[in-house]
Amino acid sequence: MNLQAPDSALVDDLVAANQILFDQGVLDAFGHVSARHDKDPSRFLLARNMAPGQVTAGDILQFAHDGTPLDAGDRRVYLERFIHGAIYRARPDVMAVVHSHSPSVVPFSVSRRAQLRPVCHMSGFLGAGAPLFEIRDTAGDASDLLVRDDRLGTALAASLGGASFVLMRGHGSTTVAPTLKLVVYRAVYAEVNAKLQMQALQLGEPEYLTDAEARAAMDSTEGQVERPWALWKEAARKRRGG
Amino acid sequence: MNLQAPDSALVDDLVAANQILFDQGVLDAFGHVSARHDKDPSRFLLARNMAPGQVTAGDILQFAHDGTPLDAGDRRVYLERFIHGAIYRARPDVMAVVHSHSPSVVPFSVSRRAQLRPVCHMSGFLGAGAPLFEIRDTAGDASDLLVRDDRLGTALAASLGGASFVLMRGHGSTTVAPTLKLVVYRAVYAEVNAKLQMQALQLGEPEYLTDAEARAAMDSTEGQVERPWALWKEAARKRRGG
Amino acid sequence: MNLQAPDSALVDDLVAANQILFDQGVLDAFGHVSARHDKDPSRFLLARNMAPGQVTAGDILQFAHDGTPLDAGDRRVYLERFIHGAIYRARPDVMAVVHSHSPSVVPFSVSRRAQLRPVCHMSGFLGAGAPLFEIRDTAGDASDLLVRDDRLGTALAASLGGASFVLMRGHGSTTVAPTLKLVVYRAVYAEVNAKLQMQALQLGEPEYLTDAEARAAMDSTEGQVERPWALWKEAARKRRGG
Amino acid sequence: MNLQAPDSALVDDLVAANQILFDQGVLDAFGHVSARHDKDPSRFLLARNMAPGQVTAGDILQFAHDGTPLDAGDRRVYLERFIHGAIYRARPDVMAVVHSHSPSVVPFSVSRRAQLRPVCHMSGFLGAGAPLFEIRDTAGDASDLLVRDDRLGTALAASLGGASFVLMRGHGSTTVAPTLKLVVYRAVYAEVNAKLQMQALQLGEPEYLTDAEARAAMDSTEGQVERPWALWKEAARKRRGG
Repeated sequence: MNLQAPDSALVDDLVAANQILFDQGVLDAFGHVSARHDKDPSRFLLARNMAPGQVTAGDILQFAHDGTPLDAGDRRVYLERFIHGAIYRARPDVMAVVHSHSPSVVPFSVSRRAQLRPVCHMSGFLGAGAPLFEIRDTAGDASDLLVRDDRLGTALAASLGGASFVLMRGHGSTTVAPTLKLVVYRAVYAEVNAKLQMQALQLGEPEYLTDAEARAAMDSTEGQVERPWALWKEAARKRRGG
Repeated sequence: MNLQAPDSALVDDLVAANQILFDQGVLDAFGHVSARHDKDPSRFLLARNMAPGQVTAGDILQFAHDGTPLDAGDRRVYLERFIHGAIYRARPDVMAVVHSHSPSVVPFSVSRRAQLRPVCHMSGFLGAGAPLFEIRDTAGDASDLLVRDDRLGTALAASLGGASFVLMRGHGSTTVAPTLKLVVYRAVYAEVNAKLQMQALQLGEPEYLTDAEARAAMDSTEGQVERPWALWKEAARKRRGG
Repeated sequence: MNLQAPDSALVDDLVAANQILFDQGVLDAFGHVSARHDKDPSRFLLARNMAPGQVTAGDILQFAHDGTPLDAGDRRVYLERFIHGAIYRARPDVMAVVHSHSPSVVPFSVSRRAQLRPVCHMSGFLGAGAPLFEIRDTAGDASDLLVRDDRLGTALAASLGGASFVLMRGHGSTTVAPTLKLVVYRAVYAEVNAKLQMQALQLGEPEYLTDAEARAAMDSTEGQVERPWALWKEAARKRRGG
Repeated sequence: MNLQAPDSALVDDLVAANQILFDQGVLDAFGHVSARHDKDPSRFLLARNMAPGQVTAGDILQFAHDGTPLDAGDRRVYLERFIHGAIYRARPDVMAVVHSHSPSVVPFSVSRRAQLRPVCHMSGFLGAGAPLFEIRDTAGDASDLLVRDDRLGTALAASLGGASFVLMRGHGSTTVAPTLKLVVYRAVYAEVNAKLQMQALQLGEPEYLTDAEARAAMDSTEGQVERPWALWKEAARKRRGG
């Protein structure tokens, strides 16, 4: 098979993304972040099966959209790589994907009454919707809730539609973005927004961003993405004792 | 008395389990974790009376099912060792036990309206039930709530029944599993689930896992137990400055 | 004036108590812990006016029950030392006092509907009551809420009565005990209990400890005070880089 | 242009204020703190566009009240510097300003039912009111919620009026004070008060400070500002490994 090496800067950023998302509490032993291959859009980059906080450049593998590992050799791969592949196939605009179980988001995935919506300008990307993926609709009511094949990945991508964020019932969420730095930003601020919204709902009658506010706020705040990226990268480096 | 030495790898894992559960906030100055003796199923291994985060291999003692210390000498033992012994006697499938006061679980032990149930795929083991041990039924309404003898341990084991988890009113919980790594996993994720469920209840009408989903999710996620174990062990080692 | 030097072990423990209570999040820049003088029950030991986490043995001063500093020289003293003095005068059984603004307790001091009660065996000392000191009853409705003289200290001691804990409206709480280690334990577990009880109230219909359970649990758990003390002291020492 | 150098002690305190507010969780990658120029009241000091926790003395720039950077050269400046300038122009008594997204305050900015009020003596400054700045009233309902020009800054200053604190809907808050140390204190305790008040509201029927209590408590507690400042400065220094 003919494999092109990705840009080493992209690989470095993907390693940093793994470490940032662990350090910020979005990923723990589970969850993963991927990037579309910069030289071959039909492939994506994702770590081998391991805890995200421990990923280094040598752990990054290539996959096809249907989840086939291309250079894993005898290394184990993530069971849920299909989340990533199916989205890269369905959404040519998406360049990076995070799947997480971040703790304030899960309650929104299981409540039949609440809907995740942007309460502040940092989470304008939620204005495009936060649809729910109910895996029972595809897998029946006796599944293990995992996106363990391309059919389930495809169903998840269909639930995501054109949004930037999809809730996964009893499981967590998946976030997408046009760049790796933005997807890290969105995964962090989805968690922040969920926590803020839970508190606002307790206080009563939250005033959400209008659709136009959400779009405008997204454009403005996401243009500043280098600032949190630099801060979070430094914090993760310090925590690792680097 | 004829005492067989346990496998040193099991003792090392039991020390690691103590340190992980402290580092993850499941145990503090109180609570304990035990393992069934690998060479003699009628005995179990448990630290001497001390804070779990400070346990080393030399602190691990052997006990009979009725709570009798076998090699403690003049070292003090945990008052509530009867929790462990009574469960090992009643449940031959159980190889490890954690008793804890982890903070999100206690509220479920005292609320007469809420029931701990699995809200996400990581806590499928709760699908087998989270019964309540009301110590008043055995000890009357003037006890110190501690499982301080074999009669109370036996009553606790009866409340546990065939489940993997039992709430102890006004006290905490006890978790069991077929391996030491799994019991650590379950003690951590019982706490995670309790916190998620409290938030989901506030948001309203949580959708719980079906029994079949809980069983399937348990099989899948618990097959991955090496990943969090390695991560948590490393985190505990770092925190200790090792 | 004839001043007797206190036992240096008591001074060391008082320094440790300051550092533990800071490290455990019970005190921050404010709040204080005192001990009755071991050789002269009409005096008590309290740090000079400073942040508790930075107290060393040289900062411990002696005071009379009416709040008069006995060896402060030109060092500034705490404005609210009257809390301590008035309680030592009113309660010969009390050997140590903590005044704090610990974060989960303050909401109970201001809610007209909730009452702090023991929800778990670790906080049995709350079974003797957690009365409210409403400073308006003595100081009127334009005070700064501070116990800034002996008259207010005396009113606080009257609200405390024979209990181990008193809420101070819009301010925090004061805890007392027959030993320094126990008062630290109680200050930590009052905070723990408050957090657990808030969550139990949200879940609905908490089952509290009966009075007899509270008394029995207090006797049992407080007999174990050396274990958390040793753990907390070590944690505080590590955090300080000692 | 004729620029006077500010007192180097003021610059050092402004650097410390940036680091403290980051370390205390009031600022993260976003938000900023400024001080009025000590030699020219028509100017103010604010860092260049960067994460507050990384600010050093060389990053402090001078600005005119209308937001014009005076010595930035080719360094990027904060988009929302107009918050600061408009307030310094409208309020000659204000010597320092913090704009933050601190997490417990945001929910109060979006709930139509709750009002931020002082629940404890540490936050007496809130007794002068915590008005809401609804940016829609000035910018319409399609803005990015940012105070990106002097007209919006002026509208914010009008909402603030004579108070010490103003909520910004879906965004955060801005705090002002007669000294830099006090504005740091107020930004920290606004967050503390918001968290306490949310919990008190859940418990039910909070008793707030009377206006006279709030004023008296503000005078007393804020006279102690050196104590938390020293503690927080030391904590921030330690965290940075200094």
